Amino acid sequence: MSTDDPAFARLPDPPYYAVIFTTRRTEGDHGYAEMAEKMEILAREQPGFLGIESVRAPDKSGITVSYWESEDAIRAWKRNAEHTAARELGRTRWYEHYELKVAKVERAYGM
Amino acid sequence: MSTDDPAFARLPDPPYYAVIFTTRRTEGDHGYAEMAEKMEILAREQPGFLGIESVRAPDKSGITVSYWESEDAIRAWKRNAEHTAARELGRTRWYEHYELKVAKVERAYGM
Repeated sequence: MSTDDPAFARLPDPPYYAVIFTTRRTEGDHGYAEMAEKMEILAREQPGFLGIESVRAPDKSGITVSYWESEDAIRAWKRNAEHTAARELGRTRWYEHYELKVAKVERAYGM
Repeated sequence: MSTDDPAFARLPDPPYYAVIFTTRRTEGDHGYAEMAEKMEILAREQPGFLGIESVRAPDKSGITVSYWESEDAIRAWKRNAEHTAARELGRTRWYEHYELKVAKVERAYGM
């Protein structure tokens, strides 16, 4: 059953790739919200981008999963200059800690 | 750099498997919080369980990622009778919608 709920990425059948980004934000905004929106808009323009799902709890923990057609698409996005600059600010300013995983989605099903 | 922050699962080096569970909760609790805690305790006891990361936003959207040693471990957990009963309640009572993906984690790195 499909849904129009924007919490769910509309994805093709597997296989495709997922980048699982688990984070703990620092206190305060420090330009984060503006940059997060900018980076999501930019990501959506990248070749091979399939979708994104992102949740942040009041305790500042968050999980963002972005979906990509291929590992090459993920690597190209990692090399993007604006994204590279944003990641550096993430490390120094916006995240207390983060973990990133690249995974190949093999099966998918929904409610 | 490792962290003691419980928002982050402590995982071995890849490869391992991830189950990405994206959800939208219904309004109200309806026994959800108690069952969610019970299922997490039960999951942690399963052979091949590696860790779990879970975030829910005030808008009721959520992402839970559980990590497993193998696809067999994921299948065995899916067949667990208590978990099967909980999933049925999830479909009928707790979730407006959900999507589930099984993925092989190939690379992982952190801050």
